[in-house]
Amino acid sequence: MIVGKTPRIRMTFVAAWNTLLALFVWDVAVTVFYYFTPFPAPALPLTIFGTGLALLLGFRVNSAYARWWEGRIVWGAMTNASRSLARAVGSALPDHAEGQALRHEIVRRHIAYVHVLRHQLRGEDTAESAHRVLGPDPIPELARRNAANGLLEGNGLRLASAQRKGWIDSMKWNRLEAILVDISNAQGAMERLRNTPLPAQYRSFPTFFTRLFCALLPIGLVETLGPATPLGSALAGFMFLAALQIGDDLVNPFANTIHDAPLTAMCATIESDCNESLGLPPVPVVQPEGGILW
Amino acid sequence: MIVGKTPRIRMTFVAAWNTLLALFVWDVAVTVFYYFTPFPAPALPLTIFGTGLALLLGFRVNSAYARWWEGRIVWGAMTNASRSLARAVGSALPDHAEGQALRHEIVRRHIAYVHVLRHQLRGEDTAESAHRVLGPDPIPELARRNAANGLLEGNGLRLASAQRKGWIDSMKWNRLEAILVDISNAQGAMERLRNTPLPAQYRSFPTFFTRLFCALLPIGLVETLGPATPLGSALAGFMFLAALQIGDDLVNPFANTIHDAPLTAMCATIESDCNESLGLPPVPVVQPEGGILW
Amino acid sequence: MIVGKTPRIRMTFVAAWNTLLALFVWDVAVTVFYYFTPFPAPALPLTIFGTGLALLLGFRVNSAYARWWEGRIVWGAMTNASRSLARAVGSALPDHAEGQALRHEIVRRHIAYVHVLRHQLRGEDTAESAHRVLGPDPIPELARRNAANGLLEGNGLRLASAQRKGWIDSMKWNRLEAILVDISNAQGAMERLRNTPLPAQYRSFPTFFTRLFCALLPIGLVETLGPATPLGSALAGFMFLAALQIGDDLVNPFANTIHDAPLTAMCATIESDCNESLGLPPVPVVQPEGGILW
Amino acid sequence: MIVGKTPRIRMTFVAAWNTLLALFVWDVAVTVFYYFTPFPAPALPLTIFGTGLALLLGFRVNSAYARWWEGRIVWGAMTNASRSLARAVGSALPDHAEGQALRHEIVRRHIAYVHVLRHQLRGEDTAESAHRVLGPDPIPELARRNAANGLLEGNGLRLASAQRKGWIDSMKWNRLEAILVDISNAQGAMERLRNTPLPAQYRSFPTFFTRLFCALLPIGLVETLGPATPLGSALAGFMFLAALQIGDDLVNPFANTIHDAPLTAMCATIESDCNESLGLPPVPVVQPEGGILW
Amino acid sequence: MIVGKTPRIRMTFVAAWNTLLALFVWDVAVTVFYYFTPFPAPALPLTIFGTGLALLLGFRVNSAYARWWEGRIVWGAMTNASRSLARAVGSALPDHAEGQALRHEIVRRHIAYVHVLRHQLRGEDTAESAHRVLGPDPIPELARRNAANGLLEGNGLRLASAQRKGWIDSMKWNRLEAILVDISNAQGAMERLRNTPLPAQYRSFPTFFTRLFCALLPIGLVETLGPATPLGSALAGFMFLAALQIGDDLVNPFANTIHDAPLTAMCATIESDCNESLGLPPVPVVQPEGGILW
Repeated sequence: MIVGKTPRIRMTFVAAWNTLLALFVWDVAVTVFYYFTPFPAPALPLTIFGTGLALLLGFRVNSAYARWWEGRIVWGAMTNASRSLARAVGSALPDHAEGQALRHEIVRRHIAYVHVLRHQLRGEDTAESAHRVLGPDPIPELARRNAANGLLEGNGLRLASAQRKGWIDSMKWNRLEAILVDISNAQGAMERLRNTPLPAQYRSFPTFFTRLFCALLPIGLVETLGPATPLGSALAGFMFLAALQIGDDLVNPFANTIHDAPLTAMCATIESDCNESLGLPPVPVVQPEGGILW
Repeated sequence: MIVGKTPRIRMTFVAAWNTLLALFVWDVAVTVFYYFTPFPAPALPLTIFGTGLALLLGFRVNSAYARWWEGRIVWGAMTNASRSLARAVGSALPDHAEGQALRHEIVRRHIAYVHVLRHQLRGEDTAESAHRVLGPDPIPELARRNAANGLLEGNGLRLASAQRKGWIDSMKWNRLEAILVDISNAQGAMERLRNTPLPAQYRSFPTFFTRLFCALLPIGLVETLGPATPLGSALAGFMFLAALQIGDDLVNPFANTIHDAPLTAMCATIESDCNESLGLPPVPVVQPEGGILW
Repeated sequence: MIVGKTPRIRMTFVAAWNTLLALFVWDVAVTVFYYFTPFPAPALPLTIFGTGLALLLGFRVNSAYARWWEGRIVWGAMTNASRSLARAVGSALPDHAEGQALRHEIVRRHIAYVHVLRHQLRGEDTAESAHRVLGPDPIPELARRNAANGLLEGNGLRLASAQRKGWIDSMKWNRLEAILVDISNAQGAMERLRNTPLPAQYRSFPTFFTRLFCALLPIGLVETLGPATPLGSALAGFMFLAALQIGDDLVNPFANTIHDAPLTAMCATIESDCNESLGLPPVPVVQPEGGILW
Repeated sequence: MIVGKTPRIRMTFVAAWNTLLALFVWDVAVTVFYYFTPFPAPALPLTIFGTGLALLLGFRVNSAYARWWEGRIVWGAMTNASRSLARAVGSALPDHAEGQALRHEIVRRHIAYVHVLRHQLRGEDTAESAHRVLGPDPIPELARRNAANGLLEGNGLRLASAQRKGWIDSMKWNRLEAILVDISNAQGAMERLRNTPLPAQYRSFPTFFTRLFCALLPIGLVETLGPATPLGSALAGFMFLAALQIGDDLVNPFANTIHDAPLTAMCATIESDCNESLGLPPVPVVQPEGGILW
Repeated sequence: MIVGKTPRIRMTFVAAWNTLLALFVWDVAVTVFYYFTPFPAPALPLTIFGTGLALLLGFRVNSAYARWWEGRIVWGAMTNASRSLARAVGSALPDHAEGQALRHEIVRRHIAYVHVLRHQLRGEDTAESAHRVLGPDPIPELARRNAANGLLEGNGLRLASAQRKGWIDSMKWNRLEAILVDISNAQGAMERLRNTPLPAQYRSFPTFFTRLFCALLPIGLVETLGPATPLGSALAGFMFLAALQIGDDLVNPFANTIHDAPLTAMCATIESDCNESLGLPPVPVVQPEGGILW
């Protein structure tokens, strides 16, 4: 996620210069062609094209932004549920040493769960983070297809065993299990966002028509704009390309690009909150690198 | 659901070539007619038409997309609730053999429930999947009009009997019943989406006016575009036809077409998650066929 | 609710022919007037009118559709809560004959409640349906101003008496009462939609300006369209009248018109689900009549 | 809230005649000026102005309508929670005389709470309604800054004392307290809507630009419309003024104007529902006065 | 938050006069240049530019407003949860002196929590407010990275100790812990809004294109507007700059500017409500200063 206040428009030009260059070359070519040949350029219905295109791009950007924001919201829900889990486990488990050991185990395993879930969403290796948090002992849940869900279920079983030992009564188990349901729902929403791309039509049509519109712009404008055509049509085209780009950038909030949600930073926040709840020191805050928070 | 990164625009042209061809033939015919006859084409108020049409198409696409996305969300909610059910049943039922047998029975019956619900939504035969999961014994719930609800109620009765036997107390029954309510709500939302089409006006008006607009486009453009009319009006018309098509494709998320939600894959995910919760091996991941995930 | 796939546009023309005819007659009159008199028609700023009108119609249709869809959603929530009530009552009440008799009584009274609520929303007589379900004995709750709420409260008292007799403990009462709260919330949302019309400005302004716009269209178009004016302005006007009509049709989802939510069919679904939960046969499915599901 | 089906457009003209008159006088003055002087009117970019203005007005009307509808929804939630409170208190409290006396006291105090909350939101005196319901005895909670919250807390303490006396167990207290939380949330949402105006920019910019646009309209139109300018620009201006007016009317749903939510009627409904739950007669239905429901 | 009814447009001009002046100077310069030189100004496609720009600005303002309103909603949720906490703690803790002392301690610490959270969100010192409420004794939780969460957890531990002493049973602990979860969720939503800026594209593109559009406006308008160009293009440009400004002002609801949510006033409301619940006098109402509520 880009957090810096640096002049972003420059980064955009850097990222988009090849598209912009191609657009400009085409605009110049069209202008030169109509300027030096006797063919008149047709008066294309650019306003009607523009209305239709704005409609398609509007759908796409709105949906992409909603996905990005929901991605951030569900990680926020995970943060909240993690704090509630740490707090409620601390309140519910008994004060004796075994109870406190179980409390530590559950909270530490939850930290590992969050990191594993992050790696799983980004398609990365999950073992390293899990062993960093839980130590070198083998973690059988990592072998499951959905390792994160396995770790969550492992915590559920630990609470069940505490309940069977009489350390917590049914009422407390009920509340703790309700927090696990919240965590489960957050994970499911993340996987939904990751596994469900935008409908194919939202991906193909806007791209196709935006490019087509950019190609047609100089033809439609050259008769009225004359030599100013390349400038005018490159600027107008860039505006619609920008709207297209926003859709591409935001659509996958867990894509591990500079535009995604800062999962690494949010997992560190969760780890610190959980650590402080156990009386342990927090981990270092993840700092933005070059204006990008990962 | 289309998941591939293959050039979708080609598939769209393949799917839409007959519409596009008809549109193009009409555009050529109109152009030829006005080019070779002395009749002047009227300067139709295409911008006003376009504004009104964009309004109608905007309503339609937004509603259709919202339905598609809600369809995906409620299946995600079913996935989450399925995991929570498997986890909570594993925690709540006692450790002894009978308790564990009931746990297996409930989770397996839930897997059958999910498959039956999927077939029910798609209007397919429900018996085959149910017997694959639960074995060849007769399943009386399949005879109910709403077989899926019958299976869910069957699980409710199993939990009630466990409670009457003293295996779980009222508190745990309360939590498990709350998960069944979540499942019930997800099923009800699916049936709502399936049984409630878009309002008739959202289906008929946009279709009628889009086709009319496409028919009028060349007449209104021929005076200014001249011989470029067929190209210009086919492209502009295709943009509005594309917006119309998106509405048609997305409106029924359980329609068993290439545009619907991937119910088969999601049911396999649920089955795998439930199996792994029981210590059983997961079922194979459903792979996309030709870029389509079913 | 219109469910048929029959060519709806024809039904629309049948329903709208008088409006369309008036529109067309006016358009012809204006055209003839300017064609045969020396007065020039003013070049009205139709694009600005159209922008403002699209704004007003957009508000109205979006709000109307949201109301219609919410009406459908809360009836879906009622269906879900009805199934959950039937299931949970079956699980919670004891197995002995008296307990099962109470279970039947509560579920049957809930069926009556749903029918009474439907008639109440549609402003119809409530007694007939209630007595069909509950038999000829007098039902004192029908005398209450809000008969449906009376029946719901009656079920609440039955659960309370079961709790006082020790048939269910406080924990189970808590869960069942939570389902009654869901039912209460669904009923309240229905009454809110029924009793709160769209703001008066959403009803009067769009209607007034759409009609005005249709009246001005031929005057503004006749100079450029010439003899094609009646066709062009009738079509453009019909598009905006269609958007107006959608708002009118959808705004009251319980209005007992062909456009409302199919309450009768949904109540029959609830009755069947409840009956099957009790082991009774379902009632016949409500079939669409002439493409309309009531 | 305006509920009548009377021709509202007439009321609007009555309410807006001074604005409309000023607009018309200005339009006539501009037309006369340019008609009788040699100065040419500039061809103002009215379409660009209109696009920008539609954007600003769209934000404003959508936000205002959302506030109005949320105001109605939270009062609906209050109605639902009131019914649930009356039902659950009736179920939970014991049958003996003291228990029933407490039930009456709690429900009657809730009625007073609702009326006090209504007066508090509208900035009116709260004592009269409270004493009408609860009798002439002093009500200490009325001295609190937030009298309504004081009454709600008073009911919470009554439930706590019932719990301390053993009349209700912790489980029932839990459920009743959950209903109080719902009531608290509804009250908080009402106060949020009342105390938070639209952002200042949403109030000032649309008003300023709409008036400016209306002032510029005749200047920009007079060259093409000629003597029809006053009519054309008054009508177009009125359309945007209407959109502005809608925003003003709906933004404060508890403002005690003819456009607000009908709090008086809704409080009477709550009182009747609570009364009937206690076996008391309902209060008279609040009838619309001159098409206005207060 | 600006609450006054003073003529806000004047404040806007005061705040924006340098932008407006620069805009006007540029517009005059362009007009003079084309008026006194033989170069013809190109007929720029301003309508197409305007459509694209309206699209981008629409995304931005809608998202910014949604953030501002959500910021207000979550503080409202905090208010509601604070009242519920004060009420429920008063109901659940026993009547004896120690119980009442704990009640006071928990509610006072909650007041401190709310103030600390406010300062934390605004990046201010947290110690002063905390010690004002809790007295001069050291507050170890302030040393935690997330001091607010530490205070919340401290209250969780106090409830747990009350439960271990037998002052409250598991059932009551469950309800109180549910209120803490609500508080946790509200805090998490606030931190999400604070830590997640709008996507970089929503910040850079609209700003860039709006300024570009304002720069191009006089060039595109000078041929038709002539000497009226500076006025016409400054007004049209100001409209789009206003939409840009709204986005900037609203995007950070906790930014401690005149446009943010009135955190200080809301915290004072919470403190007063909590105080009155304890029988203490409320703190003074925070009054707007110069039409601004902080």
